[in-house]
Amino acid sequence: MSYPDYGAQGYTSILVTLDGAVAVVTINRAKERNTFSGSFIPEIIAVFDLLDRDDRVRVVVFTAESTAPAYCSGADLTGGWSIITGGNLEGPQAYRDAGGQVSLAIFRCRKITIAAVNGHAVGVGITGLQLPFDFRFVWAGAKLAFPFVRRGISAEAASSWLLPRLLGHSKATALLLTGGTFNPDSPYLQGLYHQILPTREEVFPAAFAFAKDLAENTSQTSVAWTKALLWHPADSIEEQHIIDSRGNRELAGAADGAEGAKAFKEKRPVKFTDTLSENLSNYVPWWKEIDVRYRKAKL
Amino acid sequence: MSYPDYGAQGYTSILVTLDGAVAVVTINRAKERNTFSGSFIPEIIAVFDLLDRDDRVRVVVFTAESTAPAYCSGADLTGGWSIITGGNLEGPQAYRDAGGQVSLAIFRCRKITIAAVNGHAVGVGITGLQLPFDFRFVWAGAKLAFPFVRRGISAEAASSWLLPRLLGHSKATALLLTGGTFNPDSPYLQGLYHQILPTREEVFPAAFAFAKDLAENTSQTSVAWTKALLWHPADSIEEQHIIDSRGNRELAGAADGAEGAKAFKEKRPVKFTDTLSENLSNYVPWWKEIDVRYRKAKL
Amino acid sequence: MSYPDYGAQGYTSILVTLDGAVAVVTINRAKERNTFSGSFIPEIIAVFDLLDRDDRVRVVVFTAESTAPAYCSGADLTGGWSIITGGNLEGPQAYRDAGGQVSLAIFRCRKITIAAVNGHAVGVGITGLQLPFDFRFVWAGAKLAFPFVRRGISAEAASSWLLPRLLGHSKATALLLTGGTFNPDSPYLQGLYHQILPTREEVFPAAFAFAKDLAENTSQTSVAWTKALLWHPADSIEEQHIIDSRGNRELAGAADGAEGAKAFKEKRPVKFTDTLSENLSNYVPWWKEIDVRYRKAKL
Repeated sequence: MSYPDYGAQGYTSILVTLDGAVAVVTINRAKERNTFSGSFIPEIIAVFDLLDRDDRVRVVVFTAESTAPAYCSGADLTGGWSIITGGNLEGPQAYRDAGGQVSLAIFRCRKITIAAVNGHAVGVGITGLQLPFDFRFVWAGAKLAFPFVRRGISAEAASSWLLPRLLGHSKATALLLTGGTFNPDSPYLQGLYHQILPTREEVFPAAFAFAKDLAENTSQTSVAWTKALLWHPADSIEEQHIIDSRGNRELAGAADGAEGAKAFKEKRPVKFTDTLSENLSNYVPWWKEIDVRYRKAKL
Repeated sequence: MSYPDYGAQGYTSILVTLDGAVAVVTINRAKERNTFSGSFIPEIIAVFDLLDRDDRVRVVVFTAESTAPAYCSGADLTGGWSIITGGNLEGPQAYRDAGGQVSLAIFRCRKITIAAVNGHAVGVGITGLQLPFDFRFVWAGAKLAFPFVRRGISAEAASSWLLPRLLGHSKATALLLTGGTFNPDSPYLQGLYHQILPTREEVFPAAFAFAKDLAENTSQTSVAWTKALLWHPADSIEEQHIIDSRGNRELAGAADGAEGAKAFKEKRPVKFTDTLSENLSNYVPWWKEIDVRYRKAKL
Repeated sequence: MSYPDYGAQGYTSILVTLDGAVAVVTINRAKERNTFSGSFIPEIIAVFDLLDRDDRVRVVVFTAESTAPAYCSGADLTGGWSIITGGNLEGPQAYRDAGGQVSLAIFRCRKITIAAVNGHAVGVGITGLQLPFDFRFVWAGAKLAFPFVRRGISAEAASSWLLPRLLGHSKATALLLTGGTFNPDSPYLQGLYHQILPTREEVFPAAFAFAKDLAENTSQTSVAWTKALLWHPADSIEEQHIIDSRGNRELAGAADGAEGAKAFKEKRPVKFTDTLSENLSNYVPWWKEIDVRYRKAKL
């Protein structure tokens, strides 16, 4: 496998660096208040697709500059909802929400993903750029705004699917139907954040240290299986038992399984070598992968 | 559209008033200890059906008199379980739980619904008259009793479906399998109540002020879409993305979407005008609507 | 019905006693550090199958000796992952995880089940031996380790199915993707434990007193219906309403329903007599029961 050169991708809205097996994606739009528009959107989608397939990467940290006006201030409303209403489409069925496209790209990444939310977040800044991640670290002072019902639109970025699963319907309703702005210690957000840090400056280092530990000590194939089992569960516990049995038989019999047990016996750190491109079972995915692209009716 | 005159409906167990876009339904059975029986049941079902379709209404607050013996003391057991066992039915398949009928009527209401629980609640008083609402405000001293397994029956009013979704299975099990009585600050209820008030008298005013704000500042169509997305989710995140994309394209292109963005730019309160009867997309509902009525086998 | 004699089953890894309607299963492998291997596995499966069908039993408490090195220290890794990789199977599809088999046996038990976790728990000790129970009591000092991704395997014992349902995906991800070790008061475990006790010695007595109350005051058929409704819900609230209506019509019309209402009116303790073998509706189960056994391809 030849590895992507992230510096050669021509990104203008994000910066991407690799530190060992940890990839760091930093929003590079402080002077546009980290709004969600322009090249930002295709670049996030593209980079998460690359990071998913890059065997060097075990953990992805997504963050902003801690001095930016916001982590992400949502869509730019100076032109109204043109981000949603723009384009000459065949009809409403042809539209695909940009926030949802970003959510899907992050959600589908088979590596551990962490959002380091070191500033305020509005709209898609709290939905698409936080909910599809595995972990969220946040600044205690962050204002987190879910303004949709107060702005005449609805929950986007698949947040209406993710929030009830992450927190349950009672909290999801409180967040989405009030259209309110909350701090991370709000009871309606309880359980969403892995860690809450007192200052903006502390958020990324805490997330990065956490990422480093996971990158050094977790198996890439184990992580991919675990994420798949969590997010693509069977309808019944019996079927899940059949699937996770197969996963563990394959994993335990592979190099990473042997190394995990051996390192434990020898009381030393693990050194995992299996990769997704070489060692992930063909059994994954076991679910329907749905193509969300719209196919034009008119030629 | 001609609007219903709630005073002319002949309700005897409830009082219904409209204050701007907030409808208030008050249980009017204090001398029967607000038991769940008689005309109370069909009246709740009827009024929620009307409120759902009445374009004037944006938020519904359901409450009791704060001086009543209870918010709702559940079924009247002086005649045993006659509320369940009564009637000459074709068989057990022909019975439809009254609590569940009430739950469905509230659950199907496309407006924001709030229960202001200003007294004790037993059985259906904590299930059907609380769980299907979007928000619950409660008195800190309320005794909340789930006595089913200690009374020889089972969870009713679809509570076994709603509780795990609202709070997760661990808490739902604790509530339903113990048959216990809890206070609102019980860890097993954590997350269920939007606000807990120290006195019975404070519950309704707090819920009403909350309702007023939502009635003035939220879009009726945005709310209906959000509730539909939350409670009728697709099986996969991809399908949800396709549905919420369509919703936002339609909403952002309508009057409320334009107004939401314009008011934001002009830093002024919104004035939403879209209504469910005129402006809700034909795409809603996208799910199977199941007719729960029993059809007699015998002619 | 003739009742099983638990003392005559030849169990060597567990002790089983009956105290009224409460069955107590105690792990009897302290000198093997309560590892999950050998006869322990088939004995747990067998005893939960018996307890499910034994009409005398209303509540099952599962525990360890409070002086054992651990509640359950997980798989024995001295031979690597041989518990997973062992056996001459037709292929990975033929393997059935032992932890999952135990999870299913406990999950399928129609009585109230309680885990009294009076020591540390690792791997299957926190998954299969805790998550499928209805209630969990735990020692505040217990170390609870989810080491899978750090040992090259994946979540087992259907934990990837149970944890998101019990606690939501945000907490489930925190537990399974970190591979971490937690104390019961961890925010990531919030809601999992019914009660947290300061000392190891207090865990079983607290669980047993709780069990005694439930055994004396709950209906066996009500409990079985409630568990079935919680864990085998319909796809829609309407279908759940149809199912729970039927349940309550059958239960309220049976001896336990009559007794529950009568005892309430007479302000005296209940005395329930209905049993699963004689009085549970033929309507249960209403879901597909999946046979997870592997059928050999080769003769």
